[in-house]
Amino acid sequence: MLEDKLSTVAKAMKRSEIRELLKLVAKPEIISFAGGMPDPTLFPSKLIAEVTSEVMEKEGERALQYGPTEGDTELREKLAEWDKVDIDNILITTASQQGLDLVSKIFIDPGDTVIVGYPTYLGGLQAFNSYDAKFIGIPLDDEGMKVDVLEGTLQKLSRDRNLPKFIYIVPDFQNPKGVTMPTDRRKRVLELASKYDLLILSDTPYRPLRYSGEPCPNFFHLDGGMERVITLFTFSKILCPGFRLGYIVAPPDIIDKLVVAKQGTDLCTSPFNQAIVREIIKQDKLDRHIKKLVSVYKEKRDRMLSALDNYMPKMEGLSWTRPDGGLFLWLTLPEGMDANRMFERALASNVAYVVGSAFHYDGNCKNTMRLNFSYPTLEKIDEGIKRLAKVIEEEAKEVL
Amino acid sequence: MLEDKLSTVAKAMKRSEIRELLKLVAKPEIISFAGGMPDPTLFPSKLIAEVTSEVMEKEGERALQYGPTEGDTELREKLAEWDKVDIDNILITTASQQGLDLVSKIFIDPGDTVIVGYPTYLGGLQAFNSYDAKFIGIPLDDEGMKVDVLEGTLQKLSRDRNLPKFIYIVPDFQNPKGVTMPTDRRKRVLELASKYDLLILSDTPYRPLRYSGEPCPNFFHLDGGMERVITLFTFSKILCPGFRLGYIVAPPDIIDKLVVAKQGTDLCTSPFNQAIVREIIKQDKLDRHIKKLVSVYKEKRDRMLSALDNYMPKMEGLSWTRPDGGLFLWLTLPEGMDANRMFERALASNVAYVVGSAFHYDGNCKNTMRLNFSYPTLEKIDEGIKRLAKVIEEEAKEVL
Repeated sequence: MLEDKLSTVAKAMKRSEIRELLKLVAKPEIISFAGGMPDPTLFPSKLIAEVTSEVMEKEGERALQYGPTEGDTELREKLAEWDKVDIDNILITTASQQGLDLVSKIFIDPGDTVIVGYPTYLGGLQAFNSYDAKFIGIPLDDEGMKVDVLEGTLQKLSRDRNLPKFIYIVPDFQNPKGVTMPTDRRKRVLELASKYDLLILSDTPYRPLRYSGEPCPNFFHLDGGMERVITLFTFSKILCPGFRLGYIVAPPDIIDKLVVAKQGTDLCTSPFNQAIVREIIKQDKLDRHIKKLVSVYKEKRDRMLSALDNYMPKMEGLSWTRPDGGLFLWLTLPEGMDANRMFERALASNVAYVVGSAFHYDGNCKNTMRLNFSYPTLEKIDEGIKRLAKVIEEEAKEVL
Repeated sequence: MLEDKLSTVAKAMKRSEIRELLKLVAKPEIISFAGGMPDPTLFPSKLIAEVTSEVMEKEGERALQYGPTEGDTELREKLAEWDKVDIDNILITTASQQGLDLVSKIFIDPGDTVIVGYPTYLGGLQAFNSYDAKFIGIPLDDEGMKVDVLEGTLQKLSRDRNLPKFIYIVPDFQNPKGVTMPTDRRKRVLELASKYDLLILSDTPYRPLRYSGEPCPNFFHLDGGMERVITLFTFSKILCPGFRLGYIVAPPDIIDKLVVAKQGTDLCTSPFNQAIVREIIKQDKLDRHIKKLVSVYKEKRDRMLSALDNYMPKMEGLSWTRPDGGLFLWLTLPEGMDANRMFERALASNVAYVVGSAFHYDGNCKNTMRLNFSYPTLEKIDEGIKRLAKVIEEEAKEVL
């Protein structure tokens, strides 16, 4: 009975496999590289309690009331300063997943094409999917989306009059691959976007978490006229996910439409949470906190890379990425192996990952997996990679 | 250029007139009956600061991390107990505007019919509109939606094979009219919904704020099988809007779909805010707070009603509702008067309201207005109604 009443997109909606899977791996004996979660021992709980008391004392009446849909003015000013843009370029969002939803809402009509990484962030696929987008995936190398493949694809789509509304890119320490797009490739992508008059949706949750190498400019700073880039930021990875707080940087006419869409979606993002984060920024405590995260996560990344170097069997076709930042690296198994099939063996050995196929819109590339290094302790990284190495060795013996 | 890229719904999106208007009336010299805001002097800032400290101390690692999309389990248990339903009937939302958005997302296909009050809550119209719903409005009397008109409308729609997906009702102290639907009419509406196999979307933000009369049962408690009622609750009016926290009570199969839709929309509602509210409930401090709100708002309602009785000119066709609860009452001007036209005169006299046409999907009924009594002080209610009475008197002289 319910089925008859559902909207077209709701009929096609499926529970996210990996979110269901994450429930399976919540047992304490399992070392999980599966989630995308920050290290909770680093959350600044004490600072947040202190700042909340100050906010309640100083501006409780404002912070607990409805706020403007655009977001807290002073917070937007701070962020504009930080990102060297104008306050009219900034909309506060209920974290960046809402950014994905709002951008989809104002741009995607059923059947519209969207270009995504192959693989890409699962939550992006889910948001676009809920507006009935059709996907075209562009494979990635160690420098992100392959720009020559992108060019060929756009040529073809242009001939077919099926150009996408936007290109969705996670340029820094991409989720799931961990790779970063260098400046020259960003410029090439922008040129293509300009040639075919497309928008770029740049998703940058991990950007401040760089452990090695030099930062690349944000897309919108390469886009002279600030015309065609929409950038999503979030405080989830650099402060805490529990606030559900992020923001969008975009041209003012796009911000305007996003504001109207947001009015119907949640009226405004929590002014309480916004006030707390604004005060943390004003007290110069966010930068300091990010420095601490970078030093801890760098050690974790290094530990995972050396554990992989030390424990993984020497096997043709077995490789992994070496990210300069973020939370994830990407492991590729030899052709003929299947991370989905192997998952049960991994669970039995008390280690977990996310199957790479989950990040491919068509569910392919089953010989890949994503490994998270931000959440587990150094000891667990070491032990977990040891277990995973053994699982891969045993599985390879059986299937290769 | 942007216009070409927008989705169909985004092209049709307009900034909410009344939200823009509310910016105009923010001047301190204006006594505003326009907003729908709680009295900020009643926000329990100190309690919130204390509870936040406890939460950060006891469970900071959990409250600042990602949480389940369904919401905090313990909070859901508390709410299930409160509403005498099962935990599987409950989804925590980023306040009830998100409930309106998610319900729209899973049920409305472009062109689908939705039945709404004529007038009804503006944010409901905005949410349904952003999924390209078509509206049919049912007029209200002092007992809410006129059930005989509803019956006739459904008969006709059934013949035309254009039955709506759902009937949107604000049963208690309706926004904007302030009227409440009695139990027998609720039963009639449910019978009609059952006859035509429709869902009821019941929006109950003001329900606990009753100042006189006896409570009516919630729709879902009248719906034996709990099959066809989706109910939206929010903490915005009974605690504070600044948390952006609410919940949905619905049949489990509907909750399931809403959870998937919510994953793509914002992953989860702030676990930080959820933990604070859960602790306030556990410490039995929410009930106590509601009692305080009821006593203060009752006095404000009484003051507004007696000011209207005392100051309004005796004029045929000038009337207002006498709500038993909530935040609003509804004033009707004599036919031939136009609250939109009169608005400038009101602003010049430093008093503001919301034009009633804003709550009618077709922008009609210009001789009506909504007056809010929760936000202004008792003195301002008195003085503001005095000013408004004079404005109406002067306007009537000019136009009638």
